[in-house]
Amino acid sequence: MALDRVLNAESVAVIGASKTETKRGFQAIRTLIDEKYEGIIYPVNPKEKSILGLKCYKKVSDIEYNVDMALITTPAKTLPAVLEDCGKKGVQGAVIIAGGFGEVGIEGKKLEKEVLQAAQKNNIRLIGPNTSGMMNLKAGMNLVGLKDVPKGNIALLSQSGNMALTIMTEAKLKSLKGFSYYIGVGNEADIKFHEYLEFFRNDPDTKAILMYVEGMREGRKFLQEAHKTTLKKPIILLKSGRSSTGKRSAGSHTGALAGMSYVAKTAFQRAGIVVIENSTELFPVAETLSSLPIIKNNRIAILADGGGHATVAADILSDLGIEIPELNPRAQAKLKKILPAAASVPNPIDVAGGTDTNPALFADCADIILQDPNIGGLLIVGLFGGYGIRFAPSLSLMEEDAAHQMGKMVAKRKKPIVLHSLYNSEKPHSLHLLRYYGIPVYDSLDVACKCISVLAERGTYIQKYHGKTKFELQWRQKAVPEGIAIIKNALEQGRNVLLEHEAKKLLQLHGIPAFKDRIASSADEAVSVAGTMGSSVVMKIVSPDILHKTDARGVRLNLNTESDIRDAFDSIMTCAKKYKPDADIKGVLIAPMARKGLEVIIGTKYDAQFGPVILYGLGGIMVEYIKDFSTRVIPISSTYAKSMLEETSSAPILNGIRGEKGYDKRSLKNVLMICSDLVEAYPEINEMDLNPVIVHEHGVSIVDARIILCPGRKNLYYENTNNNKPL
Amino acid sequence: MALDRVLNAESVAVIGASKTETKRGFQAIRTLIDEKYEGIIYPVNPKEKSILGLKCYKKVSDIEYNVDMALITTPAKTLPAVLEDCGKKGVQGAVIIAGGFGEVGIEGKKLEKEVLQAAQKNNIRLIGPNTSGMMNLKAGMNLVGLKDVPKGNIALLSQSGNMALTIMTEAKLKSLKGFSYYIGVGNEADIKFHEYLEFFRNDPDTKAILMYVEGMREGRKFLQEAHKTTLKKPIILLKSGRSSTGKRSAGSHTGALAGMSYVAKTAFQRAGIVVIENSTELFPVAETLSSLPIIKNNRIAILADGGGHATVAADILSDLGIEIPELNPRAQAKLKKILPAAASVPNPIDVAGGTDTNPALFADCADIILQDPNIGGLLIVGLFGGYGIRFAPSLSLMEEDAAHQMGKMVAKRKKPIVLHSLYNSEKPHSLHLLRYYGIPVYDSLDVACKCISVLAERGTYIQKYHGKTKFELQWRQKAVPEGIAIIKNALEQGRNVLLEHEAKKLLQLHGIPAFKDRIASSADEAVSVAGTMGSSVVMKIVSPDILHKTDARGVRLNLNTESDIRDAFDSIMTCAKKYKPDADIKGVLIAPMARKGLEVIIGTKYDAQFGPVILYGLGGIMVEYIKDFSTRVIPISSTYAKSMLEETSSAPILNGIRGEKGYDKRSLKNVLMICSDLVEAYPEINEMDLNPVIVHEHGVSIVDARIILCPGRKNLYYENTNNNKPL
Repeated sequence: MALDRVLNAESVAVIGASKTETKRGFQAIRTLIDEKYEGIIYPVNPKEKSILGLKCYKKVSDIEYNVDMALITTPAKTLPAVLEDCGKKGVQGAVIIAGGFGEVGIEGKKLEKEVLQAAQKNNIRLIGPNTSGMMNLKAGMNLVGLKDVPKGNIALLSQSGNMALTIMTEAKLKSLKGFSYYIGVGNEADIKFHEYLEFFRNDPDTKAILMYVEGMREGRKFLQEAHKTTLKKPIILLKSGRSSTGKRSAGSHTGALAGMSYVAKTAFQRAGIVVIENSTELFPVAETLSSLPIIKNNRIAILADGGGHATVAADILSDLGIEIPELNPRAQAKLKKILPAAASVPNPIDVAGGTDTNPALFADCADIILQDPNIGGLLIVGLFGGYGIRFAPSLSLMEEDAAHQMGKMVAKRKKPIVLHSLYNSEKPHSLHLLRYYGIPVYDSLDVACKCISVLAERGTYIQKYHGKTKFELQWRQKAVPEGIAIIKNALEQGRNVLLEHEAKKLLQLHGIPAFKDRIASSADEAVSVAGTMGSSVVMKIVSPDILHKTDARGVRLNLNTESDIRDAFDSIMTCAKKYKPDADIKGVLIAPMARKGLEVIIGTKYDAQFGPVILYGLGGIMVEYIKDFSTRVIPISSTYAKSMLEETSSAPILNGIRGEKGYDKRSLKNVLMICSDLVEAYPEINEMDLNPVIVHEHGVSIVDARIILCPGRKNLYYENTNNNKPL
Repeated sequence: MALDRVLNAESVAVIGASKTETKRGFQAIRTLIDEKYEGIIYPVNPKEKSILGLKCYKKVSDIEYNVDMALITTPAKTLPAVLEDCGKKGVQGAVIIAGGFGEVGIEGKKLEKEVLQAAQKNNIRLIGPNTSGMMNLKAGMNLVGLKDVPKGNIALLSQSGNMALTIMTEAKLKSLKGFSYYIGVGNEADIKFHEYLEFFRNDPDTKAILMYVEGMREGRKFLQEAHKTTLKKPIILLKSGRSSTGKRSAGSHTGALAGMSYVAKTAFQRAGIVVIENSTELFPVAETLSSLPIIKNNRIAILADGGGHATVAADILSDLGIEIPELNPRAQAKLKKILPAAASVPNPIDVAGGTDTNPALFADCADIILQDPNIGGLLIVGLFGGYGIRFAPSLSLMEEDAAHQMGKMVAKRKKPIVLHSLYNSEKPHSLHLLRYYGIPVYDSLDVACKCISVLAERGTYIQKYHGKTKFELQWRQKAVPEGIAIIKNALEQGRNVLLEHEAKKLLQLHGIPAFKDRIASSADEAVSVAGTMGSSVVMKIVSPDILHKTDARGVRLNLNTESDIRDAFDSIMTCAKKYKPDADIKGVLIAPMARKGLEVIIGTKYDAQFGPVILYGLGGIMVEYIKDFSTRVIPISSTYAKSMLEETSSAPILNGIRGEKGYDKRSLKNVLMICSDLVEAYPEINEMDLNPVIVHEHGVSIVDARIILCPGRKNLYYENTNNNKPL
């Protein structure tokens, strides 16, 4: 395990150790001692002889024993020399606290590169720089200097020390859970998110991984590792910086729309990650997912005493896509037997005061409910935990009894229970007991609902998992010589864009039915070509210098007669010359007018973090203004192509509305997959824009196609796969 | 003040008084005594002589003194007799705790009606039934039997006792705020939400009104009262039951789309109500709005120590539509002077550790920031309150100093400060001080952001308020004799639907430019009529028995030649007879084909809670599948018609996209207002459906119009206005 000697170091040198209590170099040693670090601590400071009773060394290379890890608290500029010295000693890893690197501009970036080179030369793996540190809580290896962080089985990866502190504080004050590791990921100069993920996937002390991310250097590799990890352990992630990234404007039409944030969220979810958008829910969701069995069928029951809480919960859960079906008649009959006449038993179940004198009834109800095979989990809302406080102290004992029963019930029935309790802040013993059994309790209805819903989200992901998409190369199609020639030819001509007929040719080479398009270089030729089309035609200027054909008035539609075609040819030429007098005009493209149908858009772009992504949406205004589109990281499987079509709001239209026949989804799916394949097979493709594609009852027509190239790109995003075959 | 003797009663009879401690009739008296009720308590129970030292009466009419109010804890069936007896004594109001009325079905509804009649006959106003009770906290008039509810200036109206308890618990545990009144509104059998609102608007002890609503009997009157109230005091409302109402399917096409929930939210917001969807935010928002000055310009600053919290807050606030502009250069320069070099000062402002040794700097920063005239309020996120806990106890004193300064600063600058603090749960004194000054502190970033955003929401509402729309009759247009005749004629013929040409005629009578449509009863007439149109025509069957003209193959488009028109006439007639052999056929409507343009839909319906509402959206799939539409309660002002067009996602298309010229918004607005006027002028109009309306660069074409009538309706929803003029 590559990071083992780093994250489970048996000895730590504290470089920049200090006797001054406010300094990090003091606090780190103090904390390591207080937290009973299992390894050996070596203070390093040329000016001190000892610190806190430990012998102090002038430099790391003076230490007589093995040193696994260095905590470096000295300023940024000292780093290269310090790392050289660490290298001499065979140090495996270092935490760099100092800021002043990549985050502060060009000078900092240069220094960061220098530091990275020094580390790589000396075989030292780096955490940070610009980090609050790291902790291995089991080993007492606390390199943050923050005490009393609760131990447990959640690994925390954060790019903000404050957000980490928020999460740790919440764990301490409101749960019995804690952390196996904390990593302040910092600038990701060396060790990246995905490497930590690989480590935690295999770490037996980690049951869930909680992440706060502001940016990610290698999104594609992260998706690959996340995808492997989430089958074994849940990953819970909050990605911030949405608002600024939202503002970022990308160059191309569809590209600008598939903003980073949207791509990221969908991509993370497709890798099985639970994406959180409300920071208040972050720790509770991790607590729940690390403690409870998943919900396999997306169906839950709500158990309440009184109407209000149940109504609010039903609303929230419906918004979250959870089903709240009626209990089966057997369960309803059993509940009726033990509850008062006024009780409501279909679901939500309202005990209607039946628990006022015997709150242990909650456990009896819970057991009946969870035995209904149609119910995957239970949310209890309202007053549990407070009957003893509210009515009579003896009722607390019954609540404690119920807590024991429900705790064991979750283990036996393998179905989760989550609680909302109004009395959570008063810390009754019964609620403590529930937590002991792994049943979390929240005082917010919204948080409790979110938590039970993620058990269903994760359950659905695992149930539906087929192992098809691994965010890795599929090589369904390989580049063909004729295709390579088209791209090579364009690049040799100094063009980074394929002309419409070239783009269409490339599509055709890979399975799109042949286009009838032909280029004419004279009005006579145009007339004769149009005669072969057997329908009205469209005519468009072909020139590497005129990419926005409409702007140049270079498009004519619906031409039928010979004279119309002649006029169109002449007028297109005139307009083109007027638009750009020195344009290199290749001719005029003649194509049959597409049959009527449904206009859609398909596009691909090369995302800075995730590599190639694909976008689909209804054409016209839908993508641009209504923002109704779906995206996926390429490659896409047939299942994903299908889900892209299905998840847009416009999906019903494809299926046929108002008694109309539906459209050819099969062919449309095929185009999506061919686009995905092309981007794999020809890594120089930076962007594709098929706009519009017209979907018919049978077949599709690709009316316009634009492909933009990135010269020299060579499947960079797949560099770690074995099958990285060049063109 | 109508409800004054009820809600500020000087004496209370407790009917069903008891010596049994678990009974409501005991708890109520116990609580009234404990909470030091300022009035006189009269226990009533035929079997007891005294309860808790108070003389007990056999019945209310035996009491020798004035009785303002009765708390009735006896079962539902006793109510009519009890109320009769109360009437003898001149009791002004009664709280009815018992359930078993409207909420349990037909028998219950009957009993509820009987009880209401007994109350009305005896001039008694009723709270409930099916309520947890009411409290006037200032007077110690606690008719709920729940102790230790904090006093303050928030009036709480709830249809769930549990949700009220949740809110009260949160107030007690997490704030210094409390309640002026609590009303368990129950079934609203007599006193309605809007009457309570009127009372609280004029109550000097109430500064904000907090509502939990599951359903409302008189939505229109509520909007009218709310509209008057929100100018003086904020109303904060959570409406639950979205999921079930969402499922409700309405009869007409557009009606089904403008589901209750959507209409309600927009209507509430237009009345200036702050609508909350996350129950966790409900009390904090009320706390904030009842304590702090509003934000007038929707612009705030974020002040933090470290990056993470500020980034998350910026994301949340952007999602909430709040602007976070850069501070002016003067403010930035001043901040730079007092903060370390690493600090970031544009906005968000990161003190970058500058407060570690002197957290009182937060107050200095806050004062500089709030002096920037472009900044309307300040959100402080992160560690404030915890410097003393984290670093050194002496820092707590500086935090307390800062709290005093910031508290006074809010009053002086008339701009709000809201805090998020990681250390909120540890209850440091500095945070208590902030609350003392009315600055709320939250441990959830999401809640803190929501709270400062509602100060901006309310500020914007008040700034933009022009007093135009009052949810009351405008009578811009009155019914005209010709219009009345059209409706009368249809109703006399036993039709509750106007034929297309009748609907169009009605629109034309009220300002829509004349339609050229004509009805032909023979093929010859059709040809001659079509000849006058000067363009291609459309032909449609006209029959009260064929409302779905397309289903009956009764529509032909784009007809040009005489033979086409003859063929179309014959074929329409044949199809109609086949579709419905005994159909009463009035002829065939001939109309010019509409010029091309943008298809939109305009519809009205009669909402069960709010009366007439209007809907607008782009035609085709947009309303039905993308659910991109806007609604308003009728009548609409010109400003509202404009905002209806602007708030749909498709708004940019109206303005002209991709270099196209825009569409005639002025004419479209005019159609919206005429529809609103028509529904006012002809209360029999139950539903209108103009679908499609085609908007051109100049003018609009109403291609089809359908009007459904409700015979006999007479402006019911306006019954309390003075100008209720019949047809």
